[in-house]
Amino acid sequence: MTTDGPLTACVLVIGNEILSGKTQDTNLQFLGSELSKLGIQLEEARVVQDEEMAIVTAINECRVQYSYVFTTGGIGPTHDDITASCVAKAFDRKLKLDPEALKRMQRGTGDLNEARRKMATVPEGSILIDNPVSNAPGFQVENVFVLAGVPSIARAMFASVVKSLRKGQRIYSQGVDIFLREGDIAEPLTRIALDNPDVEVGSYPFSRKGCYGANLVVRSRDPKRIEKTLARIVDTMTALGAEFTIGPLV
Amino acid sequence: MTTDGPLTACVLVIGNEILSGKTQDTNLQFLGSELSKLGIQLEEARVVQDEEMAIVTAINECRVQYSYVFTTGGIGPTHDDITASCVAKAFDRKLKLDPEALKRMQRGTGDLNEARRKMATVPEGSILIDNPVSNAPGFQVENVFVLAGVPSIARAMFASVVKSLRKGQRIYSQGVDIFLREGDIAEPLTRIALDNPDVEVGSYPFSRKGCYGANLVVRSRDPKRIEKTLARIVDTMTALGAEFTIGPLV
Repeated sequence: MTTDGPLTACVLVIGNEILSGKTQDTNLQFLGSELSKLGIQLEEARVVQDEEMAIVTAINECRVQYSYVFTTGGIGPTHDDITASCVAKAFDRKLKLDPEALKRMQRGTGDLNEARRKMATVPEGSILIDNPVSNAPGFQVENVFVLAGVPSIARAMFASVVKSLRKGQRIYSQGVDIFLREGDIAEPLTRIALDNPDVEVGSYPFSRKGCYGANLVVRSRDPKRIEKTLARIVDTMTALGAEFTIGPLV
Repeated sequence: MTTDGPLTACVLVIGNEILSGKTQDTNLQFLGSELSKLGIQLEEARVVQDEEMAIVTAINECRVQYSYVFTTGGIGPTHDDITASCVAKAFDRKLKLDPEALKRMQRGTGDLNEARRKMATVPEGSILIDNPVSNAPGFQVENVFVLAGVPSIARAMFASVVKSLRKGQRIYSQGVDIFLREGDIAEPLTRIALDNPDVEVGSYPFSRKGCYGANLVVRSRDPKRIEKTLARIVDTMTALGAEFTIGPLV
């Protein structure tokens, strides 16, 4: 876990279904957006198979590199849910049936059979993460937060842990749609980006009803720097004769 | 590049906009699904920022580990498009303005200004990847295929390279929706999975109109093994009194 400098994060999406194309992941976008609001920069994401070595390696590489790691997926009751045992292995801890987790699961329906008891079995010393949707908790070991893969449950679990995360200065962003082709605005935009190295300037081309354009996005922890940079972009693009539409600060 | 054993792949999604939550990636799902049809197993994906060190490191780690690496994003004309220079750095090759790439770009509209000429500048020895959507080509260096980030262009570029990829035996999958909770079917399902280690059995819970269930998916290169495993799943679930709906073999 890094403790100095800006807060950073990595998302580890666990599941064959994402890599096979069966399932469209949506947790990454949600977490990236929420972490920005908390001033935590999501710097990397990895998607790995339901394979012990791949999961353990990814957890161990990422947990030393980023302030926080959020995993999604692999904490259900079936044989292909191996995240808890992989986290235990990564931290060299034993797995343990957690009585509090079991108690929370008793709120739900269904027998607490062996398969469901697996969902209450977490690495020793874990902090449980509340699951208001379907009771079976996630868990935290040091800087690794283990969330469910089902998006509604991942979101609810993330809401449960927000209060325990250190916060940075919120990362704001504001975009402007410019109705000129990227190739025609790239050179003046580069000068603006070079003159403002403390803000992030991104350019994302679009084509709408046959009209080409670019969505230019300015990101910074300081809304005043966004305002100033965006004003220069708008002035420059106006001089080029471009039409534009400014979006909200988010 | 690995040359023995099953064909594998890694997708490298390049772009701050994916990590900030601004943009929902859809290229990963497309590539995972298409690669399965070609018998190439997508084993990992990484999402990295528009940062040279992150991109170079990811390319070099992944290109030795997998048969193929497909990158998406970062090949436009603006300052934040740095994929080509990162690939050059990863392979220790020079960047070079490619006359054929420039010629293809002349089909498009817009002056071939410095920014657009950057899109025709690729690592020495690259093989160009045709872009029938917007002309500016992608490129291939050894086992690394560099595609655009815009989904329609990424898809078209992938279609352009399919013929040059080695093919494995197609990976098929077939699913069955079981209208029982995962926790109630996990134990018999585990026995089936253990008895059929050569096929992949996945379980994905769902909730539809208040009804809980699980989508059980069997994957294999051999459709007969899928049929046999699925038949045992259906027999077992019928004995448990479950309703079910079988999906098509895809």
